[in-house]
Amino acid sequence: MSREIKFSLVYRDMWQASGKYVPRVDQLTKIAPVIIDMGCFARVETNGGAFEQVNLLFGENPNKAVREWTKPFNDVGIQTHMLERGLNGLRMFPVPADVRQLFFKVKHAQGTNISRSFCGLNDTRNLELSVKYAKEAGMISQVACCITNSPIHTVDYYLAMVDKVVEFGCDEICLKDMAGIGRPAFLGELTAAIKKRHPHIKIQYHGHTGPGFSVASMLEVARAGADYLDVAMEPLSWGMVHPDVITIQAMLKNAGFTVPDINMEAYMEARSLTQSFIDDFLGYFIDPGNKVMTSLLVGCGLPGGMMGSMMADLKAMHGAINMALRAQKKREVTINELVVLLFQEVEYIWPRLGYPPLVTPFSQYVKNIALMNVMHILKGEPRWSTIDKNAWDMILGKTGNLPGELAPEIKELVKKNGFEFYTGNPQDAFPNELDKYRAEMKENGWDVGQDEEELFEFAMHERQYRDYKNGSAKKRFEAELEAEKAKAGAPIIITRPVVEVPKIDVTTVQEQYPNAKAVQAPAKGQMLWEYDVVDASKAPNIGDAVKEGDTVGYIQTIYGIEPVKAAFAGKIVATYPKQGDIIEKGEILAFVD
Amino acid sequence: MSREIKFSLVYRDMWQASGKYVPRVDQLTKIAPVIIDMGCFARVETNGGAFEQVNLLFGENPNKAVREWTKPFNDVGIQTHMLERGLNGLRMFPVPADVRQLFFKVKHAQGTNISRSFCGLNDTRNLELSVKYAKEAGMISQVACCITNSPIHTVDYYLAMVDKVVEFGCDEICLKDMAGIGRPAFLGELTAAIKKRHPHIKIQYHGHTGPGFSVASMLEVARAGADYLDVAMEPLSWGMVHPDVITIQAMLKNAGFTVPDINMEAYMEARSLTQSFIDDFLGYFIDPGNKVMTSLLVGCGLPGGMMGSMMADLKAMHGAINMALRAQKKREVTINELVVLLFQEVEYIWPRLGYPPLVTPFSQYVKNIALMNVMHILKGEPRWSTIDKNAWDMILGKTGNLPGELAPEIKELVKKNGFEFYTGNPQDAFPNELDKYRAEMKENGWDVGQDEEELFEFAMHERQYRDYKNGSAKKRFEAELEAEKAKAGAPIIITRPVVEVPKIDVTTVQEQYPNAKAVQAPAKGQMLWEYDVVDASKAPNIGDAVKEGDTVGYIQTIYGIEPVKAAFAGKIVATYPKQGDIIEKGEILAFVD
Repeated sequence: MSREIKFSLVYRDMWQASGKYVPRVDQLTKIAPVIIDMGCFARVETNGGAFEQVNLLFGENPNKAVREWTKPFNDVGIQTHMLERGLNGLRMFPVPADVRQLFFKVKHAQGTNISRSFCGLNDTRNLELSVKYAKEAGMISQVACCITNSPIHTVDYYLAMVDKVVEFGCDEICLKDMAGIGRPAFLGELTAAIKKRHPHIKIQYHGHTGPGFSVASMLEVARAGADYLDVAMEPLSWGMVHPDVITIQAMLKNAGFTVPDINMEAYMEARSLTQSFIDDFLGYFIDPGNKVMTSLLVGCGLPGGMMGSMMADLKAMHGAINMALRAQKKREVTINELVVLLFQEVEYIWPRLGYPPLVTPFSQYVKNIALMNVMHILKGEPRWSTIDKNAWDMILGKTGNLPGELAPEIKELVKKNGFEFYTGNPQDAFPNELDKYRAEMKENGWDVGQDEEELFEFAMHERQYRDYKNGSAKKRFEAELEAEKAKAGAPIIITRPVVEVPKIDVTTVQEQYPNAKAVQAPAKGQMLWEYDVVDASKAPNIGDAVKEGDTVGYIQTIYGIEPVKAAFAGKIVATYPKQGDIIEKGEILAFVD
Repeated sequence: MSREIKFSLVYRDMWQASGKYVPRVDQLTKIAPVIIDMGCFARVETNGGAFEQVNLLFGENPNKAVREWTKPFNDVGIQTHMLERGLNGLRMFPVPADVRQLFFKVKHAQGTNISRSFCGLNDTRNLELSVKYAKEAGMISQVACCITNSPIHTVDYYLAMVDKVVEFGCDEICLKDMAGIGRPAFLGELTAAIKKRHPHIKIQYHGHTGPGFSVASMLEVARAGADYLDVAMEPLSWGMVHPDVITIQAMLKNAGFTVPDINMEAYMEARSLTQSFIDDFLGYFIDPGNKVMTSLLVGCGLPGGMMGSMMADLKAMHGAINMALRAQKKREVTINELVVLLFQEVEYIWPRLGYPPLVTPFSQYVKNIALMNVMHILKGEPRWSTIDKNAWDMILGKTGNLPGELAPEIKELVKKNGFEFYTGNPQDAFPNELDKYRAEMKENGWDVGQDEEELFEFAMHERQYRDYKNGSAKKRFEAELEAEKAKAGAPIIITRPVVEVPKIDVTTVQEQYPNAKAVQAPAKGQMLWEYDVVDASKAPNIGDAVKEGDTVGYIQTIYGIEPVKAAFAGKIVATYPKQGDIIEKGEILAFVD
């Protein structure tokens, strides 16, 4: 009999690879029975990644959403899975061990069957507790290898990683091809090698379609022994997202595999429901560029989701670079030449930085360094003149070991700056915090919830949880939606709505904290808050104490990184720009009371 | 040593799979050296298909364009190729043998090295003269197998076709996967079988990316022995077009093939030049929907280019169908249900119609019958109540044999209507015409041109050539462009401009022909001119004589096909709607003088 290949509908990732939000719980529970009726899915990705945080962002309770959304699948035996970021859990910066442990208990209790755990650096130290806690909680533990394309990311490199996590006790391996740049033949070889070494380990392939390899990759891994393939469906398949189940099913059937039939009537109904969610509100936050594939991602290996912001960065710097070139009496560069220069610079620096997998957030760090290098070189200044804080943390090993060796020129820079490499286990630098959150909840009279799920959400997404509890998240979301609706007319997935940054209303803060003092931008540029260059919410937490002269954030200007310092000691009572926002000199970034 | 795979840039098809026009000769000669600099192309598709006709449509001379555009490639030894439609040559209806013979002589003289010949029915009788005339003219003769996915389109079916055309003397075989629905494993088997039987025959694979298989297909055919792969490049790769050379090169390199390097600097320059052509005028005529892939094409097998008009048809019929359902006290259908019903109907009728490959124009004929059937069935009427003239011609074998057997119910219909099957060689029904055109050119004082290329164009595209000669083509194009510019603002490939059908200005005709009488639409519906449902220009030729009561065209109404009859005898002096335009009852369709 021919071998069977099973499909997982990654409904969560379909949305997150397309835009900012995910459907509301009433929408999810409406589509769940139709997805079941399609009859072709053994698994559905229900939550994880940014799902829970996004629920808080629009003022809804993620615990309720996950429970109601997983239930129909649990009832019929379709397995549910979630994505989690190892050391970073469901956020973009490290999570204490006790919060990570509670996390898996809560998700198991909520009906999530499988946890897919990844570390952006493929550092197995960051995955050990994920496997342990998932198994303790009764979940199937799947570890994801972040796929990238470099001379050191060989079959042997990944096999060594797999050996280690299998030793930890994981049940399954995911090949997480987040930029879709894994080469099909390589992925086939890797799958065969893992299956040969660990025949009992299930393999699930997850690939994005951005640069175009993924359909070929699916045929290769299927032939090499993969068990599950992650697929999407209309209207959110293809583009920067995933292949459509229709194409993959037809291809594998023709290639001799046993694959389930698709109930096309249910497919069309699910398609129509998903479109109705887009029309309802989600379309306002979908970038239509994500419907379009591009092979420019092949060379640089950057994930497709980054192209938009990268082009915006380049356009913002274009004028300043040409001004500098004119001053040097050199030929000006076009924006296309700048793209090529940037891609070439990524190709130059990436090996020298030890080949960090180009996955969030490391892809951003590498891109940021490359961008600064291109600017400095064109201005006649030395390469590596500006490296931001996050990139330094990556270089110094604070959140994990880089896969490759740093180049001598980077080691020299570390020495020159008087920095030290961090060699401990990254988790050790983040002590337990649950007691602190438990105490505050008690003090506030907040319920810790069924299975302590409310305590978990508070500890995992502190700031977003506060905004959810005090109602400001819902208000902010509704205002954001109104602003989009006013501008866009009917949301059509092909049409890019023009989005303006809403002006800040500081009056409410000043009413509430009459003595609060503003922290203003020292320069024009792009806002980089403390921990991370990716996540929209990683401004300092409300209530954080700052001393006079403390750095509360950074601004990436066209000439380098400018720290934002608090001029007064106190507690932060409000922050305004989101990560990555372009801000004007003098703009109010935060209030300290 | 590893096997070498060569690439062809199908620059002609890239444009024609995206929109209506192709670049002007000044633009083509600007980009040619940059394409050469890319260093990765052994071949370039320069002309054929609709290229020559489109040149006439915008008032330029295609002979000049082809000569200047092929020259730089000829100079450096990059082979140029064209697409031609066998019996239909460079148009959508049969071409006399003497015109076909001159065609290959002219194209060889103009610098086109390879002719790719296809018949939409895979009827080798229609390809025999293409091979003969191409070889006589000194060209490399490549015959294309139109790939479709049916129980009778087996490896053996295609092998029989290949045996026949190899016997005719063709040098190469193209697997023309025009809808991109060839299944990768099947295409690999087919390639291996052809190479085994005819080791000296070169194989070139041509696939569109619409339904998503094509990258996997390219890996399969490469492994099975294909020699050349057709690729595209940004900004026109992917979507309904072809895979990008960057992705295919990287995939094959990793899979162990010898592939040429890509000069990325030249790639970016060619990308930027192509974008500048889009910005100049071509973007106004590009459908942004063609940038988006869809797996709905897999089940029905219809080519991607048809989805837009099909959805428009369905929307137009939706109200009338629901009205009929309400009258029968039945549940109304949604537009999504209608799409599924149509796809199911295509699946039902396609085998019964003898599996015509779903390529232009036969894909349209099948879709039209399915559409009418769905409407009749929902209205409680019998299936097959309306079959239009073109579909009957296909059924009766007038332009070639259907690949499969007709179902008994269709044979019964033929009998009932008193129709007869045509069993002769289709070419025989179209006597030579060159002398006629030569005589008129002499009479008009028109030069037959170098290598008789002007005579050839006149005979191949009579109506467009007249409009080119009298300047009305250029005027019409300029007016069309002005109208688009006025509406669209800057053309951005992602943004769908709102296009309105320009109102007809009949005053010039009435001034010129004061006695001309209007032919008006007898009903509201979609315009179908005489020969063909696809080509925009196949209205009757200006100057055609009509008798009173002659049918000059058809209107596909929601209730069936309505003939348009001339109320007066005379010569046609003007025609207005284009093929497929939606017209109102009473609208002026043409003038007869």
